[in-house]
Amino acid sequence: MQASSLQQKFIQIRSNKAFELFVIGVILLSAVLVGAKTFEQPPSVMMALKAMDLFITLFFLTEITIRFVAEEKKSQFFKNFWNVFDTLIVLVSIIPIDNSESAVIARLVRVFRVLRMISIIPELRILLVSLVKALPQLGYVMLLMFIIFYIYAAVGATFFSQINPVLWGDIALALLTLFRVMTFEDWTDVMYETMEVYPLSWIFYLTFIFLSAFAFLNMVIGIVVNVMEQEHEKARAEKLSQEGNEEPTLKDITLQLQQIQSQLASLQQDKKSDRA
Amino acid sequence: MQASSLQQKFIQIRSNKAFELFVIGVILLSAVLVGAKTFEQPPSVMMALKAMDLFITLFFLTEITIRFVAEEKKSQFFKNFWNVFDTLIVLVSIIPIDNSESAVIARLVRVFRVLRMISIIPELRILLVSLVKALPQLGYVMLLMFIIFYIYAAVGATFFSQINPVLWGDIALALLTLFRVMTFEDWTDVMYETMEVYPLSWIFYLTFIFLSAFAFLNMVIGIVVNVMEQEHEKARAEKLSQEGNEEPTLKDITLQLQQIQSQLASLQQDKKSDRA
Amino acid sequence: MQASSLQQKFIQIRSNKAFELFVIGVILLSAVLVGAKTFEQPPSVMMALKAMDLFITLFFLTEITIRFVAEEKKSQFFKNFWNVFDTLIVLVSIIPIDNSESAVIARLVRVFRVLRMISIIPELRILLVSLVKALPQLGYVMLLMFIIFYIYAAVGATFFSQINPVLWGDIALALLTLFRVMTFEDWTDVMYETMEVYPLSWIFYLTFIFLSAFAFLNMVIGIVVNVMEQEHEKARAEKLSQEGNEEPTLKDITLQLQQIQSQLASLQQDKKSDRA
Amino acid sequence: MQASSLQQKFIQIRSNKAFELFVIGVILLSAVLVGAKTFEQPPSVMMALKAMDLFITLFFLTEITIRFVAEEKKSQFFKNFWNVFDTLIVLVSIIPIDNSESAVIARLVRVFRVLRMISIIPELRILLVSLVKALPQLGYVMLLMFIIFYIYAAVGATFFSQINPVLWGDIALALLTLFRVMTFEDWTDVMYETMEVYPLSWIFYLTFIFLSAFAFLNMVIGIVVNVMEQEHEKARAEKLSQEGNEEPTLKDITLQLQQIQSQLASLQQDKKSDRA
Repeated sequence: MQASSLQQKFIQIRSNKAFELFVIGVILLSAVLVGAKTFEQPPSVMMALKAMDLFITLFFLTEITIRFVAEEKKSQFFKNFWNVFDTLIVLVSIIPIDNSESAVIARLVRVFRVLRMISIIPELRILLVSLVKALPQLGYVMLLMFIIFYIYAAVGATFFSQINPVLWGDIALALLTLFRVMTFEDWTDVMYETMEVYPLSWIFYLTFIFLSAFAFLNMVIGIVVNVMEQEHEKARAEKLSQEGNEEPTLKDITLQLQQIQSQLASLQQDKKSDRA
Repeated sequence: MQASSLQQKFIQIRSNKAFELFVIGVILLSAVLVGAKTFEQPPSVMMALKAMDLFITLFFLTEITIRFVAEEKKSQFFKNFWNVFDTLIVLVSIIPIDNSESAVIARLVRVFRVLRMISIIPELRILLVSLVKALPQLGYVMLLMFIIFYIYAAVGATFFSQINPVLWGDIALALLTLFRVMTFEDWTDVMYETMEVYPLSWIFYLTFIFLSAFAFLNMVIGIVVNVMEQEHEKARAEKLSQEGNEEPTLKDITLQLQQIQSQLASLQQDKKSDRA
Repeated sequence: MQASSLQQKFIQIRSNKAFELFVIGVILLSAVLVGAKTFEQPPSVMMALKAMDLFITLFFLTEITIRFVAEEKKSQFFKNFWNVFDTLIVLVSIIPIDNSESAVIARLVRVFRVLRMISIIPELRILLVSLVKALPQLGYVMLLMFIIFYIYAAVGATFFSQINPVLWGDIALALLTLFRVMTFEDWTDVMYETMEVYPLSWIFYLTFIFLSAFAFLNMVIGIVVNVMEQEHEKARAEKLSQEGNEEPTLKDITLQLQQIQSQLASLQQDKKSDRA
Repeated sequence: MQASSLQQKFIQIRSNKAFELFVIGVILLSAVLVGAKTFEQPPSVMMALKAMDLFITLFFLTEITIRFVAEEKKSQFFKNFWNVFDTLIVLVSIIPIDNSESAVIARLVRVFRVLRMISIIPELRILLVSLVKALPQLGYVMLLMFIIFYIYAAVGATFFSQINPVLWGDIALALLTLFRVMTFEDWTDVMYETMEVYPLSWIFYLTFIFLSAFAFLNMVIGIVVNVMEQEHEKARAEKLSQEGNEEPTLKDITLQLQQIQSQLASLQQDKKSDRA
């Protein structure tokens, strides 16, 4: 009974607006802390920052505990991606740090606390989910793009590796260099270098830029068309539900007309039987 | 009675097309003056420019006074954003300039006089208002983008501050550097530098470019879809108002058909009573 | 009578498909000549090129004469923009060249002969006309953009002219520098230079990039929406003309129903008079 | 009879899902091999790679033979672009390599084996075909763009070849330089160099950037509008087929109404003949 009353109290806390705002406040503080630590700070400030860090860790631990206790079906708790995400960030934070390598990971985890901003604000969560959902639809265009990249990288690494091993040494470096060319970042420097040995190598760069730009354009159009279709679908569904309530369909009208025709037919029948 | 006649005279002046064109002319002159002063000028020309500057200040003062007097409800005058904007620019212009610091502000204010171009041309005002209105709708995407920037800046400032303090010294510098990477401005120089220490840091840059480009694309699509919807809404509203005037709805037709059916029913009824 | 027969002969030539293809061929030759002259050529080839140049000039002169004679209403000939354009290019070509300055102009004119490609291919002419027509619709956005540029250039020329007179010396140079910043061309170099004197000048660059990118985006959307609307308008007009021919409107149906109702009313009237 | 049974066996193999996956696996292996060879490898690994290369060549030869034998109408086999493509890649692979020049070609062919990825995955094939189909529709815009490029290149090569022969030496180099300017790649360096001799040459660059950006924008809009129209066309066709099955047209309703009117007319006629 005591546990149950504790659970109800925690449910109250969890759904308390002020508590939610306080959690957002602590996440913001956590973000500011992460930023503040990148500046040179006097030792006293560093001490304060560390103390606040400890407070945030403990607070997040408390908050996740409250949410876990408040959850009615414990098994559902870890089926929610965001709960697992929040729990992981808290758990990694409380692992004792011994050597410098773990310290780097610990610092990284503190950075990712900022991501809790997304898990706490519903609108951002929806936005992120819709972004992630849009990705697989682009799957085949991205595969095609990767094939283009891979072939050009293989050609580049085969022919240009002697000219500049830093840019074209192997296929991995060549892929990075081609990405650089696609962003137009000093791509002429890369080109002029190879044109000294292979004067026609501008064909390599220009065809690559055209192909990748064209594939990229198609990716963008794919997203746009996709978004538009969703909008149209929504608009159509809305229109249909409106029509269903208010407007009759043409089919309803033909049915009505058929009724009229049978009424007329019965009138004509009556007439005939009248005469007879 | 005299004040009232003065007001009417000023209303006449304000709505005079020639006066409006003259005001636009003075604003253009003011813009040219601002530009002319950035060139090296002989002292005589500088004198002329200063005289013209004084004339413009006095003219703007006169114009705002005319508009204020012509306003029927004085309290409404300062509720209009553009009136407040114009008044502020004029008022700051007539504050006597003593030291060099104020002089800089005074020069800045003269530059902003060019903005009066927007306050005087209605089309530009509408355009600006619609631009400003479009901003908040992008709020959550921009927040998400800032979170992405902040996390990458925190990671960058944590790991790369030793490598290049000018670019990654603290989180503010790191944010600026990331914006530079997003514009593809010599981003490979930034990357190659950190790759010498952390050979896998290309993952940092490539994921950042993908994430920010993807979020940016979504922002653009957001604006496009929004604009499209407004257009559709307008088109639909237009169509509805046209239909309302000219075309009957399917509902009207079913009502008409019901009338016909009841007419037929009464005919059948008559028949029956006839026979009986 | 002889003149008239000449005119008819010329009309025949003008509308001859082979003649048209030959004109296109000569224009292409003219384009190749312009290109060939930019390469180092031995004197004999240069002689040949000059001879071909003379031939092209004479051919264009002949062709324009044929088209002028073939024109039925001479006064209409010069009301056509492309006729004036073609005539001007031919006339400037035959002006004797004396000094080197005119020679430069003569060379330029020969380059513009390539533009005759547009005047001869109808599809390109239509494309160009539609491009030019799209421009004024963007008028106000471009004016707003220029105001943004002008204000930032005035501020830049005022504050940064001491730091780098080559980039910010006067408002004209500042406008060019800002265009460079807008294209992201080494814009960080420009920024880091001024940040040494004014550490907060990054605000200047970032707000400028945001404003100009936002205005540019609106310009693009403006064009897209405009193009879309034209397409919708076309589609609607098509649909209307189809409906007019094939499909009755809802109004036609209500009229038909009214006829039915009056028929029924007369039936009921007959019945009544029958009984009476 | 034996040949026929072999053919049926091969048809079975060809349509076997496991065989298809195995082919994809070998193509992937071939892609990895191409990549692996760009890295420095110890001699033993190089031997293994060569052995695998031989295996892939033989496997591809076997696979194409199976597909050829399985084809019922041999004459149709080479009418399929992808069959020709696959056969060519295999045939060039088995040509014995003697000197270094052919070796380069042989290496290139091995790279193009990766393209078999597209010929084997139907979705990629469809994507590529639709990309290729979209190109000719842009024909005239691309021609217009080339004319713009050509004229600017001719002007550039005429005036700037003395200033920097590497960039503006002849029309081919000038075209490459202008493409560089269009990608904004260090375009200000190119401009500042010519501005030292011709201070007004910024007009050349700015007009070129505006024209090419505007033409490019029109190309993009052309693609977008085209894609949209295809979508609308699909949606309309879908809607029509749905309406055809479920919904009557307005024409059907008027026909029905005409039937009713004739029924009423006959009723009135009966009435009249009744009275008479």
